[in-house]
Amino acid sequence: MEARDIRLIEVKEGILAESQVLAGKLRERLRGTGTFMLNLMSSPGSGKTSLVLRTIDALRNELRLGVIEADIASTVDSEKVAARGVKVVQLKTGGFCHLDAAMVSEGLDAVGPQDLDLIIIENVGNLVCPAEFDTGAARNAMILSIPEGDDKPLKYPLMFSVCDVLVLNKMDALGVFDFDLRAVEQRVRVLNPAIRILPASCKTGEGIDAWIGWLRGEVRAFRNG
Amino acid sequence: MEARDIRLIEVKEGILAESQVLAGKLRERLRGTGTFMLNLMSSPGSGKTSLVLRTIDALRNELRLGVIEADIASTVDSEKVAARGVKVVQLKTGGFCHLDAAMVSEGLDAVGPQDLDLIIIENVGNLVCPAEFDTGAARNAMILSIPEGDDKPLKYPLMFSVCDVLVLNKMDALGVFDFDLRAVEQRVRVLNPAIRILPASCKTGEGIDAWIGWLRGEVRAFRNG
Repeated sequence: MEARDIRLIEVKEGILAESQVLAGKLRERLRGTGTFMLNLMSSPGSGKTSLVLRTIDALRNELRLGVIEADIASTVDSEKVAARGVKVVQLKTGGFCHLDAAMVSEGLDAVGPQDLDLIIIENVGNLVCPAEFDTGAARNAMILSIPEGDDKPLKYPLMFSVCDVLVLNKMDALGVFDFDLRAVEQRVRVLNPAIRILPASCKTGEGIDAWIGWLRGEVRAFRNG
Repeated sequence: MEARDIRLIEVKEGILAESQVLAGKLRERLRGTGTFMLNLMSSPGSGKTSLVLRTIDALRNELRLGVIEADIASTVDSEKVAARGVKVVQLKTGGFCHLDAAMVSEGLDAVGPQDLDLIIIENVGNLVCPAEFDTGAARNAMILSIPEGDDKPLKYPLMFSVCDVLVLNKMDALGVFDFDLRAVEQRVRVLNPAIRILPASCKTGEGIDAWIGWLRGEVRAFRNG
């Protein structure tokens, strides 16, 4: 399209570049405190909060945990985390459809990484913009839930490209939906050959051990690196 | 947050205002050709394309139909529409997470409203930004699918506020998920007392008659207005 849109792209790139620099600084800061930060992304309703709660239950006795919740308008998710007695900060993003490094920086100030081993960012529910912004996290994770369909890697390729691990959630509902596991795996591998793909169900607990195993391994590698 | 973010907001508002003016012009243009345009929005994987296909099957013998498909990267959806023999244009939005009036204007040029009674825009799968941009459509529709959960009106209030009708899709999966129909209705009504709420399943066909009835009524009212 023409000049109008080009202007928008330039502004966006300016902010992206700024955010990228700040993200690098956040990573240094977290390296200094020995804190592993994970950025968790997905569509609305794929199960981000459920996976955060499962992770808290599995790791709270071995790691000091904190959560940064992003939400456009509500505190629904952070209340669930707080009910587990885990340190949580809620970022209300207003109209923003993603988190950038500046917002995460404020979240870190509030949650205090110096006392934490693992911080999970629950990003805004959106498969588009969150993929474009480096939050300063050590690793990016995403959830695709079975009801969303197996064509999503074709439609939101950047998200699948930037993530280190893909959790296929709501596996318990596989029989109810027309979802081809092999097709989704092929579509994801074309975009991102190295990604870990973990089928799971936050409802039944299926596959949660593998997820926790992956996360534990990443935290250990971070500490040893 | 500070200056950085304020700058972003101003730019966004500038573009929103521009888009709003152009949206008004598109509405005049469509009034001139007697074409009703519907803007359909939802999360990724809620069933927008399935509802478009159901609508085509139900109305193709009484209305001249066209579809404007938005997708970040693929032509998956437009191929399905084209297979029905219906006029379709695919807008690849690249990194854009929503359609604005300028993009829709290009879509209209390509699809040719002068020969059409009804144009459906399938917006980018996203509950955030598409709600902010007036596309020039006569009516806004959204889908919330049962697996996404009943807390979505709390988390994405603007989307529920700007729509004239809400289709609750995947009702056939209601027994599989923890979804409180009464709670979601209450949460939606607080935001938007006048919205029509239509439970449906694009898979089984349940509720599709009511959806078609609503749409047919809106097209008639538009023509008589």
